[in-house]
Amino acid sequence: MSAGDAETERLKRLAAEAAVAEIEGKMVVGLGTGSTAAFALEALARRVAGGLQISGIPTSEATAAQARRLGIPLTDFAQHRRIDLTIDGADEIERRTLHLIKGRGGALLREKIVASASRRVVIVADHSKLVDRLGERAAVPVEIVPFGWQLAVERLEVLGATVRLRRAQDQPFRTDGGNYIADCAFPSILDAPELERRVGAVLGVIESGLFIDLATGVVLGTPEGPKWLRR
Amino acid sequence: MSAGDAETERLKRLAAEAAVAEIEGKMVVGLGTGSTAAFALEALARRVAGGLQISGIPTSEATAAQARRLGIPLTDFAQHRRIDLTIDGADEIERRTLHLIKGRGGALLREKIVASASRRVVIVADHSKLVDRLGERAAVPVEIVPFGWQLAVERLEVLGATVRLRRAQDQPFRTDGGNYIADCAFPSILDAPELERRVGAVLGVIESGLFIDLATGVVLGTPEGPKWLRR
Repeated sequence: MSAGDAETERLKRLAAEAAVAEIEGKMVVGLGTGSTAAFALEALARRVAGGLQISGIPTSEATAAQARRLGIPLTDFAQHRRIDLTIDGADEIERRTLHLIKGRGGALLREKIVASASRRVVIVADHSKLVDRLGERAAVPVEIVPFGWQLAVERLEVLGATVRLRRAQDQPFRTDGGNYIADCAFPSILDAPELERRVGAVLGVIESGLFIDLATGVVLGTPEGPKWLRR
Repeated sequence: MSAGDAETERLKRLAAEAAVAEIEGKMVVGLGTGSTAAFALEALARRVAGGLQISGIPTSEATAAQARRLGIPLTDFAQHRRIDLTIDGADEIERRTLHLIKGRGGALLREKIVASASRRVVIVADHSKLVDRLGERAAVPVEIVPFGWQLAVERLEVLGATVRLRRAQDQPFRTDGGNYIADCAFPSILDAPELERRVGAVLGVIESGLFIDLATGVVLGTPEGPKWLRR
């Protein structure tokens, strides 16, 4: 890791701690997935060790395993239908709207379900994730049904995307739900809510990584300390 | 089986044979799932034994197994993106539009993907499946993601449905894709295409059993012989 990378990590850790400071006792907390969300888990574990009582709903098997190792109590939707606060990362954040692209970690479906059930969703990120318009750098991950995936890819191409089926060890990558991910690069995303609807309507698509009106706040790691953006 | 049931079965067999008579050599054929589609498989196997050369794309693991037993050659979407003719059953058929409710057999997702890739989709049924308006008798099966299924059910209820999670042996029923089925009874379906869009837009819903503009023909088993309805 270069000195710059190490500094970015340090700033993200501070931002994650600022997000975790929003958690109060008795809350049901959505636990995000990925390297940034992992910093939040560590900060949360320290507060739990200090006596904070919360229940977490994890967005992936990996996060569930990490939370168990860290001693964070877990619950599920059978026990709680509503989440007070979710902390997660993002691949891109649109400055003006706080719409997101998520799913590089492969957990977009569960992340979206958890976010949709949350009163507040706080995204932790470094400054490089902030964009004027979604799609500037990130492709949109789209979770698709394995059966007939070739048809879903064709239809996503018709919507204007350059599509790559995500692979891992020379096999199609499998999500926790057993599905595939199509990474869809759109040349420009002028209307993210409309694109989210159109992608979601494609037969064989389960869910896209376009998160519209789900984030309620963003905390950025900056050299001046954590900086909040709110909707 | 009563004499009436046996007669209904005989008429459905004749209807299935009439549908299978539409298949020509070299076609890629979509193979439906369920008891009525099974009659079509048997009729198709007899034509294959007689020298007809086709390739079948099955809509379920059960149909794939039956086709193999019957000696029907199988293919998949890696080999063929387009299907010439699909033969399948339905739970309800709207007389005026040929819109369908499908999925009582639990294979709606693969059936819909196969139908969407087909130039012609012929539905075999007995007369009792024909209705003036979808939803008169049948619930709409909806395939949903297991993670957070409780939220998807709540949102389907908001759309006006009385929802039952389908069970098998005291566990949630699992589709071939590993998902759950929510059987959604709507008091009246005034606009099936609009309902299909609204159900499909629910987070956690993979696909509904509303088949809009997919059937191109229906062949009914009647005492006067197979009767065709065409769009």
